Amino acid sequence: MTQGGSSGRPVRVAVDAMGGDEGLLAAVEGAALLSTEERPVQVLLVGDEAQLALALARQRYDPTWLQIVHAPDFVRQEEKPAEALDARPGVSVLRAAQLVAEGRADALVSAGNTGALVLAASRQFQRLPGIRRCALASVYPTEQRHGERGDPFALMLDVGATLTASAEDLVGFAVMGSAYARIISENASPKVALLSNGSEPSKGTAAIVAAHEVLAGLPGLNFAGNVEGLDIPRGTVDVIVTEGFLGNVVLKMLEGVSEVVVDLAKDAYARKFLYRMGLTMLSQGLRQLRTMTDWKQYGGAPLLGLDRVVIKAHGRSNARAMRNAIKVAAKAVDRDLTGQIRAGMGPVTR
Amino acid sequence: MTQGGSSGRPVRVAVDAMGGDEGLLAAVEGAALLSTEERPVQVLLVGDEAQLALALARQRYDPTWLQIVHAPDFVRQEEKPAEALDARPGVSVLRAAQLVAEGRADALVSAGNTGALVLAASRQFQRLPGIRRCALASVYPTEQRHGERGDPFALMLDVGATLTASAEDLVGFAVMGSAYARIISENASPKVALLSNGSEPSKGTAAIVAAHEVLAGLPGLNFAGNVEGLDIPRGTVDVIVTEGFLGNVVLKMLEGVSEVVVDLAKDAYARKFLYRMGLTMLSQGLRQLRTMTDWKQYGGAPLLGLDRVVIKAHGRSNARAMRNAIKVAAKAVDRDLTGQIRAGMGPVTR
Repeated sequence: MTQGGSSGRPVRVAVDAMGGDEGLLAAVEGAALLSTEERPVQVLLVGDEAQLALALARQRYDPTWLQIVHAPDFVRQEEKPAEALDARPGVSVLRAAQLVAEGRADALVSAGNTGALVLAASRQFQRLPGIRRCALASVYPTEQRHGERGDPFALMLDVGATLTASAEDLVGFAVMGSAYARIISENASPKVALLSNGSEPSKGTAAIVAAHEVLAGLPGLNFAGNVEGLDIPRGTVDVIVTEGFLGNVVLKMLEGVSEVVVDLAKDAYARKFLYRMGLTMLSQGLRQLRTMTDWKQYGGAPLLGLDRVVIKAHGRSNARAMRNAIKVAAKAVDRDLTGQIRAGMGPVTR
Repeated sequence: MTQGGSSGRPVRVAVDAMGGDEGLLAAVEGAALLSTEERPVQVLLVGDEAQLALALARQRYDPTWLQIVHAPDFVRQEEKPAEALDARPGVSVLRAAQLVAEGRADALVSAGNTGALVLAASRQFQRLPGIRRCALASVYPTEQRHGERGDPFALMLDVGATLTASAEDLVGFAVMGSAYARIISENASPKVALLSNGSEPSKGTAAIVAAHEVLAGLPGLNFAGNVEGLDIPRGTVDVIVTEGFLGNVVLKMLEGVSEVVVDLAKDAYARKFLYRMGLTMLSQGLRQLRTMTDWKQYGGAPLLGLDRVVIKAHGRSNARAMRNAIKVAAKAVDRDLTGQIRAGMGPVTR
């Protein structure tokens, strides 16, 4: 059983069950799946009570670990977050955040509208000391492996909670990314670097150069200096720190490259018998590639910088992806992610 | 024979023959190669006279089209551009730029230190009306084809002449990129877009939003709005406009992805007989991939915004790549690239 940090009770995760591309089904199935496993997590499914009860009735699950909390409405993917939250305070993402703020749950998970999740969390939770701006972090596949477990994913942040970032913001991102990689990827001393246009400390914008100087002297951080675009797919470091605008472009570009590679393989398959034979012989390797290109569906992206654990599951999450996101949230609570970030920020704020 | 714009005489290209990774050999061989072709270009090889004469003596070439201009020194790849140019005014890149400024040549090509080329050109040439900052543009391979010729490359700028860019800078980049794609890729109406974190006109930094508004109303430009990271490898548009810091990261990342794909294929080849068979059957397709991953060696990157044509050839350029860069420079002179940019900037500066 997963333990709730210091208290010893099971971790409780509030799941915004509405608003993902798959509707409430992925959340319900994912939570049901998890309830029957060896190490379950207490899940509060937040959404339309009648719909949730109906969907749940069709699942095999252990009712000890599942509870429904009613929310009459939800934010759609295409809605403007601030307008939606202001106009409809009963939306599921806000209700789920409130449950966490009230201490009825320890962490928040949602596959819905990203902006609405960030806004709801920012309104309900407090920023950690020294953190001026939150960051969304995302794992992505790399050529090199990471940490003792040989994890094929590196972490990048911010990937879209901000646009530009000051030196202070970048320092906070570095500390938060390091804590997350330590706890979730179980990488004892993750290498952290700033994304720049050259490896020398003098390279990059004024914010990057200033952040470099602070990070180079920060105790408890395995700072590897600057990395360049080349290092992103290589995976030279474990955590890459950048402003949200750039992180967003880079991450979407990686998605685009994956899709193009899959397209080209499909195209080759259709074009020529010899190619078809060749691809069949490579199928085991290509399956591996496939797994890598589907990476966005695994786990979820943490929103870092608040005093509560928040995980954004991908909009296209299926049941397994939702289960994984809930497990990641529970693990982050269990191993005290927010406490680790607090500790990491100590030398910065002092 | 290539004609020199309005004057009717052959185009003359000053080539900084030193400072590429291959030393002067690539430049000499490339120029020699071109001198024996059907449509030669007048080339001034700038560098150490004795070394150049020695290297040239070993080539087959037509002396009508080749001339050596002595420069006693050159800027190394690892040198700081400003320091080098200030301390040693006899360096080849500066001498070559002077030949162009003096009207003895029409265009400048170099495979040497990028910063030194940008600085030498900026000191010797004038910025075109309305252009506050120059941009380096680079082609890169995409899934979709471009223009009437089905070109597999799209253009991106700036990729490193600047760090950040104002709205005015981005507008200038869009006009310059469009002119270059029209002239060099022979794409009659290239689609130009701003790189942002969403397709809506409201998305992106303040500079991007402001540039979007100007570009949407600019006559003579086929403006396609904003594109996202996903669109970069897809090649949804023909010209992508962004600030230099981001362009640098994106371009190096594309290089990195290409290298990783080649590595993975090599690794698969070495690992398993079945994979080896499969890859052999795919070899024709993989050769195509190889060509695509070597794209940086073809042509060269134009430095846009000055009143003369400047082409930066890749540091690793071989003879064929240098020949191509010289031909691109001659074509840009021939079709009046600077005049086209001037015309495109007309509605902006008015």
